[in-house]
Amino acid sequence: MAEPLDYPQSPPEQPANGAAQPTSCVIRVRFAETDQMGVAHHSVYPVWFEASRVEWMRVRGLSYREMEASGLSLAVSRLEVSYRSAAYFDDEIDVGSRLVSVRSRGLLFDYRLVRLDDDRLIATGVSEHVPTDRSGRAVRLPARWLEPLRRQ
Amino acid sequence: MAEPLDYPQSPPEQPANGAAQPTSCVIRVRFAETDQMGVAHHSVYPVWFEASRVEWMRVRGLSYREMEASGLSLAVSRLEVSYRSAAYFDDEIDVGSRLVSVRSRGLLFDYRLVRLDDDRLIATGVSEHVPTDRSGRAVRLPARWLEPLRRQ
Amino acid sequence: MAEPLDYPQSPPEQPANGAAQPTSCVIRVRFAETDQMGVAHHSVYPVWFEASRVEWMRVRGLSYREMEASGLSLAVSRLEVSYRSAAYFDDEIDVGSRLVSVRSRGLLFDYRLVRLDDDRLIATGVSEHVPTDRSGRAVRLPARWLEPLRRQ
Amino acid sequence: MAEPLDYPQSPPEQPANGAAQPTSCVIRVRFAETDQMGVAHHSVYPVWFEASRVEWMRVRGLSYREMEASGLSLAVSRLEVSYRSAAYFDDEIDVGSRLVSVRSRGLLFDYRLVRLDDDRLIATGVSEHVPTDRSGRAVRLPARWLEPLRRQ
Repeated sequence: MAEPLDYPQSPPEQPANGAAQPTSCVIRVRFAETDQMGVAHHSVYPVWFEASRVEWMRVRGLSYREMEASGLSLAVSRLEVSYRSAAYFDDEIDVGSRLVSVRSRGLLFDYRLVRLDDDRLIATGVSEHVPTDRSGRAVRLPARWLEPLRRQ
Repeated sequence: MAEPLDYPQSPPEQPANGAAQPTSCVIRVRFAETDQMGVAHHSVYPVWFEASRVEWMRVRGLSYREMEASGLSLAVSRLEVSYRSAAYFDDEIDVGSRLVSVRSRGLLFDYRLVRLDDDRLIATGVSEHVPTDRSGRAVRLPARWLEPLRRQ
Repeated sequence: MAEPLDYPQSPPEQPANGAAQPTSCVIRVRFAETDQMGVAHHSVYPVWFEASRVEWMRVRGLSYREMEASGLSLAVSRLEVSYRSAAYFDDEIDVGSRLVSVRSRGLLFDYRLVRLDDDRLIATGVSEHVPTDRSGRAVRLPARWLEPLRRQ
Repeated sequence: MAEPLDYPQSPPEQPANGAAQPTSCVIRVRFAETDQMGVAHHSVYPVWFEASRVEWMRVRGLSYREMEASGLSLAVSRLEVSYRSAAYFDDEIDVGSRLVSVRSRGLLFDYRLVRLDDDRLIATGVSEHVPTDRSGRAVRLPARWLEPLRRQ
């Protein structure tokens, strides 16, 4: 039913540089994250995406915590998740994230979740972000953040 | 940035009957659902979708609890959310859901979130579902559920 | 194993007035709140407590949203929950809350959760709160809030 | 306000062996775990406790996943948390857990949360558990689990 995202192929918007390199963030499925179907509930995946996105930035010397402290946020404007295989309690999942496109008014990340144990594809996803100020208004990403993000 | 979903227009797949009627489920944003940006965290919206979907079924005499008890689940295979305006702590949000298409192998719901206070559009979304058995295998929806869903 | 809280008896600290009257807040157990044991996960109960506490205030004309907007919070300093019976998906639970004691430096609420369907006691609990300012420092509750809380 | 738990002192019930050794589980505070006060929401701490408890077992060759698969659960019957200092987004927190007492009918864990960065005590807590079967009935812990737990 779910159409495969084009993650494995080279997306057209993708900058010809290191951003194509996904950053890994391994999470372990918590018991609290399961539901009565015995699998990780689908609403947890965006939380894992976020953890991996924050890691993507950290690895590149960009602290999302610092960005937030400066009054700037990357509000999520759109989210897409394709669920391929269930994730189970205690599974270790590699949550890969990539910055696919970056403009002063918007960023696009994509994600690829793979279970470490058996290399099974668990899910793919996309999130779009709008830089906002403390009051939630959309703003342009200042050069202090835009430049290093573009250089990735 | 976020492209509007076609919710307000009549989608082509929509059956020519009562399914087009969205079912309302009013939720109040919990404090625990906010994040440090001061808004409802984006991962909570799929939880609200789910609550409204369960209500959609209940209103039509279809108990999701009973479906689960019978060993049948509607696993989420795809999810899409467009965030339009922030939702704040204590806001009352009308979470409207509609069954857009139904086949024995898959269901499609869409959602429209509106703040009661000022009629502001908060978000739209879509979820695709695959009927599964207890072991998580995709199955055909039995007539006992398919027929009444089609009749909607 | 769990020792019963003294909820049903009149606790010594309880002011001799309307605060003794619990305020009801009916929640319905969400699918996302269940875990793979097939019951509402224990970490959700404090979220329900909070929803009921906010309702307790609202019913008395005290808006927690307004309190927060004024820069004042009621940080949780202690929490206790006794789990008596499992709560299941789709159960309607009456989450009763009472303000048991109020001082300028601290508040104590207690809770009693009962399933509507069969009047089964699901859980009891207690939360202690410290008024804090925006920076998280403990402060005295201003008269604007202390007085009406005491009058309850 | 919150009375200190006796974690640092030797509790009377504590078995004179390795169980006294807390097991560390370092978690990083997720953005989704913060609330609009700008701190980790208090309902997340029990989720961290649980993650550490599962780690405590794993380190000792006891898989909670396996226990669950065998139809046995450790249902939480009581929970207590004392919040000492706020935890912030992106903080790394050492969540230490210890098995304080073990009987065939009940287990008691305690917890101590310390921020790695500045060694600040974030919280302490206790959880009581009742072994249950698949239907949620309290059962005696079978020797296959009781023995190795006692030997800790």
